[in-house]
Amino acid sequence: MLENVKIDMEKNQKQPFNFRTDLASERRDIYQRANKLEEIEGIQTTKEEISENIKVERVQITNKNGEQAIGKPIGNYITIDVKKLKIATEEEIQKASEVVTSELKSLIDKHVQKQEEILVVGLGNVYVTPDSLGPKVINEIDVTRHLINYLPQYVEEGTRPVCAVAPGVLGTTGIETMEILKGIVDNTKPKLVIVIDALASRSIDRISSTIQISDTGIVPGAGVGNTRKEISQETLGIPVIAIGIPTVVDLATIVSDGIDIFIGKLQEDAKSNDNLNKLREEDNYEEVKEALNVGDYNMIVTPKEIDDLIENMKDIVARGINFAV
Amino acid sequence: MLENVKIDMEKNQKQPFNFRTDLASERRDIYQRANKLEEIEGIQTTKEEISENIKVERVQITNKNGEQAIGKPIGNYITIDVKKLKIATEEEIQKASEVVTSELKSLIDKHVQKQEEILVVGLGNVYVTPDSLGPKVINEIDVTRHLINYLPQYVEEGTRPVCAVAPGVLGTTGIETMEILKGIVDNTKPKLVIVIDALASRSIDRISSTIQISDTGIVPGAGVGNTRKEISQETLGIPVIAIGIPTVVDLATIVSDGIDIFIGKLQEDAKSNDNLNKLREEDNYEEVKEALNVGDYNMIVTPKEIDDLIENMKDIVARGINFAV
Amino acid sequence: MLENVKIDMEKNQKQPFNFRTDLASERRDIYQRANKLEEIEGIQTTKEEISENIKVERVQITNKNGEQAIGKPIGNYITIDVKKLKIATEEEIQKASEVVTSELKSLIDKHVQKQEEILVVGLGNVYVTPDSLGPKVINEIDVTRHLINYLPQYVEEGTRPVCAVAPGVLGTTGIETMEILKGIVDNTKPKLVIVIDALASRSIDRISSTIQISDTGIVPGAGVGNTRKEISQETLGIPVIAIGIPTVVDLATIVSDGIDIFIGKLQEDAKSNDNLNKLREEDNYEEVKEALNVGDYNMIVTPKEIDDLIENMKDIVARGINFAV
Amino acid sequence: MLENVKIDMEKNQKQPFNFRTDLASERRDIYQRANKLEEIEGIQTTKEEISENIKVERVQITNKNGEQAIGKPIGNYITIDVKKLKIATEEEIQKASEVVTSELKSLIDKHVQKQEEILVVGLGNVYVTPDSLGPKVINEIDVTRHLINYLPQYVEEGTRPVCAVAPGVLGTTGIETMEILKGIVDNTKPKLVIVIDALASRSIDRISSTIQISDTGIVPGAGVGNTRKEISQETLGIPVIAIGIPTVVDLATIVSDGIDIFIGKLQEDAKSNDNLNKLREEDNYEEVKEALNVGDYNMIVTPKEIDDLIENMKDIVARGINFAV
Repeated sequence: MLENVKIDMEKNQKQPFNFRTDLASERRDIYQRANKLEEIEGIQTTKEEISENIKVERVQITNKNGEQAIGKPIGNYITIDVKKLKIATEEEIQKASEVVTSELKSLIDKHVQKQEEILVVGLGNVYVTPDSLGPKVINEIDVTRHLINYLPQYVEEGTRPVCAVAPGVLGTTGIETMEILKGIVDNTKPKLVIVIDALASRSIDRISSTIQISDTGIVPGAGVGNTRKEISQETLGIPVIAIGIPTVVDLATIVSDGIDIFIGKLQEDAKSNDNLNKLREEDNYEEVKEALNVGDYNMIVTPKEIDDLIENMKDIVARGINFAV
Repeated sequence: MLENVKIDMEKNQKQPFNFRTDLASERRDIYQRANKLEEIEGIQTTKEEISENIKVERVQITNKNGEQAIGKPIGNYITIDVKKLKIATEEEIQKASEVVTSELKSLIDKHVQKQEEILVVGLGNVYVTPDSLGPKVINEIDVTRHLINYLPQYVEEGTRPVCAVAPGVLGTTGIETMEILKGIVDNTKPKLVIVIDALASRSIDRISSTIQISDTGIVPGAGVGNTRKEISQETLGIPVIAIGIPTVVDLATIVSDGIDIFIGKLQEDAKSNDNLNKLREEDNYEEVKEALNVGDYNMIVTPKEIDDLIENMKDIVARGINFAV
Repeated sequence: MLENVKIDMEKNQKQPFNFRTDLASERRDIYQRANKLEEIEGIQTTKEEISENIKVERVQITNKNGEQAIGKPIGNYITIDVKKLKIATEEEIQKASEVVTSELKSLIDKHVQKQEEILVVGLGNVYVTPDSLGPKVINEIDVTRHLINYLPQYVEEGTRPVCAVAPGVLGTTGIETMEILKGIVDNTKPKLVIVIDALASRSIDRISSTIQISDTGIVPGAGVGNTRKEISQETLGIPVIAIGIPTVVDLATIVSDGIDIFIGKLQEDAKSNDNLNKLREEDNYEEVKEALNVGDYNMIVTPKEIDDLIENMKDIVARGINFAV
Repeated sequence: MLENVKIDMEKNQKQPFNFRTDLASERRDIYQRANKLEEIEGIQTTKEEISENIKVERVQITNKNGEQAIGKPIGNYITIDVKKLKIATEEEIQKASEVVTSELKSLIDKHVQKQEEILVVGLGNVYVTPDSLGPKVINEIDVTRHLINYLPQYVEEGTRPVCAVAPGVLGTTGIETMEILKGIVDNTKPKLVIVIDALASRSIDRISSTIQISDTGIVPGAGVGNTRKEISQETLGIPVIAIGIPTVVDLATIVSDGIDIFIGKLQEDAKSNDNLNKLREEDNYEEVKEALNVGDYNMIVTPKEIDDLIENMKDIVARGINFAV
């Protein structure tokens, strides 16, 4: 849910690095660049080029050192990049969904047996375009649980029970997503949860063109105060696979990045000075954000074509899940 | 949810009368006409005309006899009729919402204290226009529960905690609505549930112009097989107020009614015969429905302007609830 | 546009046969059955089975006799039937769109040269689900006219100029569709118009599963009074290909059909009588429709899943057109 | 239409001032500040405070000097500001719509007689949320032209004929908006056109909270190349009143503003240097925009709640127009 933009940033500010991104692969890059490292002990990466427009990167955090470096728990983080999604043909959408299926399937098989029940959860608000991906995917999931229970004669032997919910957002329901999910999990007893969520990204070109799949759960923003409740094996008692798709960049991030790049250019041209360089290190542009009125509003940066992008991404993720489960 | 159309009819066929309507006031009329009664022992009715276009009828079932006569449990059933809703002005919508507030408030006060928590539940499928009323109302409910929990300083002393969910439909989630609600109620512990649902009506002129408020719970259709789980005090452990709005008429109902009226006209004109009269009593038009292909499809009869009607009705019900709670 | 349901029926009632359908192939069947004919002079038909779920029927009206028999002008009428569209897979949707492409292409080639400009027109109201097909298809059309005019360097040599408009409906615009189109055609000078429209069908199983392509234009209903303006070569001065898709059945049609079938069953069982048989011939059920309140409302019969069906049909028609032009 | 963001900027860069806003009142402020003027010869302004949350500002450009100063033609520009629209109550929306009615009515009366026909035009793309305001307002306009033509008995004597169209955007239709409008105006012969359009604003707090009404026409962006066709009395031959509502800020604008503010703060703190100050004057941040990838994408800055804001603004504008005409 996009409610978490602001809060994630606050949390990040207490970390050694202010990553301002939910993507493990972006964080690893930022950390490596900042520390001038070739690689980070405890983080392994493999890359694969599926086609001209589709790339896969698998980041595995294997120990505490990797965990602390980029502020993400031990586990698997797979990033699928789909270029030019806006003008993607039907074949490219199909191809991308097959990559999602294959990566998702291998993660699922690590955690549950072939016929064990899966609950798919779509976070977000269907009435807010850039936050509507989760609920829209849920509407396309091929649920089977009720058929297996009520009409077993119509279901193939060995079909996995699948159910799906879109619990809504705290601002609309007044209830923590975790409270709703806890109740549903307690009553329906699935063996694995797949959570789909819209994320904030750091870079504009990730928007609605990157899919991150991880098996370490997710922290949706509570949007009010600090009390946020993680959705993970720890809180739900069963493994949680998260599928996150960046759909917006926070405006404050873009403005800060813009000023950083600006100072960087000045340095290159030797037009910079000490005061400026120091400012950049401190990332201390609060006054600018204030003057821009960024703080008062929940402003997002998004492509004008976000409605279309969400539709294409919904097809990729929904088909990807349907064939994986 | 509109999934219950077919099943309600099956259930009704085992009752002495085949009501084919969820509205208590329609059922009472049908029973009285069929039995040539002026009134039914155990059922009390009062009528009130609020304005030229708005009428209220309060049906109270007081004992087992009333219950058996019309197949509805002991309790209160309030029917609010809003004529010409399609072309209603802003003032008329406001007026109608005030009537909903007043009737709803008096029912709520019978069951809970002023500050006790209420959960509002919107049944139905947001992606199917005539079934989308419930989720759309939920999006407009002023929830306060999270504010009271996290930001008490911004909330007026004595504000009632309100939360709201749209759990989706069995066909999309694979989970019984009752299972989802049971989980949420167990975790959030409200003292009263208000359920909003789209209903099937018997008569075309009720569509999206009638609101039934009752305090006896609701039976959403499971849509698959017979196993349906009632949402009521009995199953949830707390009082359940149901707000039902007819948005469709089942096609089979309309066709049967058409043939009944047809035979009735023939009788009046003395063009009927014994065979025909007998047929009518038996309501045995299965062959007709079959030939019309009615059975194979989930066909509904609805006004072409249903999208607009749903919008207006959403405003009436959402404002009605917001001011009542 | 669905505004024409009522008016078409009035017009039809002055014809020897009351067809109550816009589909040439349904009209031919009704005429043949009523006249106990094997074939109609002036009407030629070929059928083709593309796959298990897709069938094509090509009706050609070749002379005045054929024209008068079924009340449709001389020309080509191609009916493509797609069974089980609701649960169609991506491949079946692709297959169906290819059939549309192939039939449409052969009609286009009869009327214009390879590079001559085409205007695609989507009739209907985007805010009324069963009438939204036309505007939704327009949103998916690959327009090239502006690129050829402003950015010729980005367009392949020989690309046909294509433009597209959704003019809205009389009830929303206050302007006859023909007046809007006439103005656009006069200013942009295309050589052919393709019009997409939602139709009324006679039979439930045609709804959103049949596509009729014809080269004789279309008569959208004005919805108010009798003054309707045909969209055809005669009025626009250029050839008009119409793509019509049934999305509703008029309620009055269904009820009349139900009573006809009912009397038919009685005849078979020898339970009918002369009065009844006479009634049927006269199609004189006005009193029934009145008692059902059918006349006062613009009631339609539609599948509950019409939202989904419209989405799938939109994909088929839009892709079909994009590859044909 | 939001297609014009980029092009307006290009055009503006050839002007003495780079206003980056379509609002006359913002331009006047920028010009006054830059030239340290108290007032501009040829521009008159009056302000009125309607209520705590609603303010009106009337800017009149009376001669060539005023015209050149802020790059807007001679005429009237009324800016209505509605604070806190997102959480506006029904009464506040009603109040704001009454202000629109009153300002619009006085402009209309300057140009046409009481019963002369008006065409309302909604620019923009209904499928792109921040660009959907125009078409959505059109759907709410009370059109009367067809009633007066076909059903005069149902219309009060003296009713003004009103018609309305949403012509779509160049990217979807392939046709210049002016070509479509020219055709419609030639065929229907209205005496005045009212155009509704989503604009780009310079400041975040204008988004969906400001309404600019002017009687000097509008220049929608062609989006492709430079050929844009003004919608004005000059091109259409009849007066054109434009209602513009800012719904986005261009990302490049925000980033440039951010850097300007940043340098400004440095100057105040005496941490700036000559190179920096020069850069600011030249507004030469192209490299930053490039590095941010701003140029490649059509990125917009918008509030997360833009869907809700558009709904409320639609009500204000539609009611405002309906009562004014």
